[in-house]
Amino acid sequence: RRSHTAVSYTDPQVSMDLLRAVLQPSFNDDIMAVFRKYQKFFEKAAENVKENMGEDVQTDQLIREACRNVLEHAKQLFPEVEGKRTGSEVTMKRSRAADEDFI
Amino acid sequence: RRSHTAVSYTDPQVSMDLLRAVLQPSFNDDIMAVFRKYQKFFEKAAENVKENMGEDVQTDQLIREACRNVLEHAKQLFPEVEGKRTGSEVTMKRSRAADEDFI
Repeated sequence: RRSHTAVSYTDPQVSMDLLRAVLQPSFNDDIMAVFRKYQKFFEKAAENVKENMGEDVQTDQLIREACRNVLEHAKQLFPEVEGKRTGSEVTMKRSRAADEDFI
Repeated sequence: RRSHTAVSYTDPQVSMDLLRAVLQPSFNDDIMAVFRKYQKFFEKAAENVKENMGEDVQTDQLIREACRNVLEHAKQLFPEVEGKRTGSEVTMKRSRAADEDFI
């Protein structure tokens, strides 16, 4: 939607993206801290793959790809279409704090 | 790369993705907790856009899109190509714990 020629700072996406860019470094630190909690699981899984396959398996590439996939799936927390939140007041019971209260 | 017909659990991507799927719900909780820290900034920005534009601006769609963009950009923490880490021992000095030690 943002053309590379004229960038208008009043364009909603552009101004939101300016904020995103400003916050990204500290987001990245927080997100990296989250991944560190799960690091050992991914390492273990990649090691298993390597043992099973025997071939020259690139464990860190497997791990990085899995981490990218986690981020891709996390986008479902911020759905494009209203579909995720039903109109009716009934929302699914969740053990943890529901993320509906976010947006 | 994963074909929808035959899924072989010995396929590296498949087994890593099984782990990813198991961990995703608690990742999502952690990631949502991170976003809550920044929520007020995104809300403020979206409100500003609405005031400037005057029109019927969908602030929560703007916010959700910005959040998805944050997740997309965070993928750079786990680059596909080795490019990010230089071969040489010299690594850029970083104020926070460098994320190189992750992968």
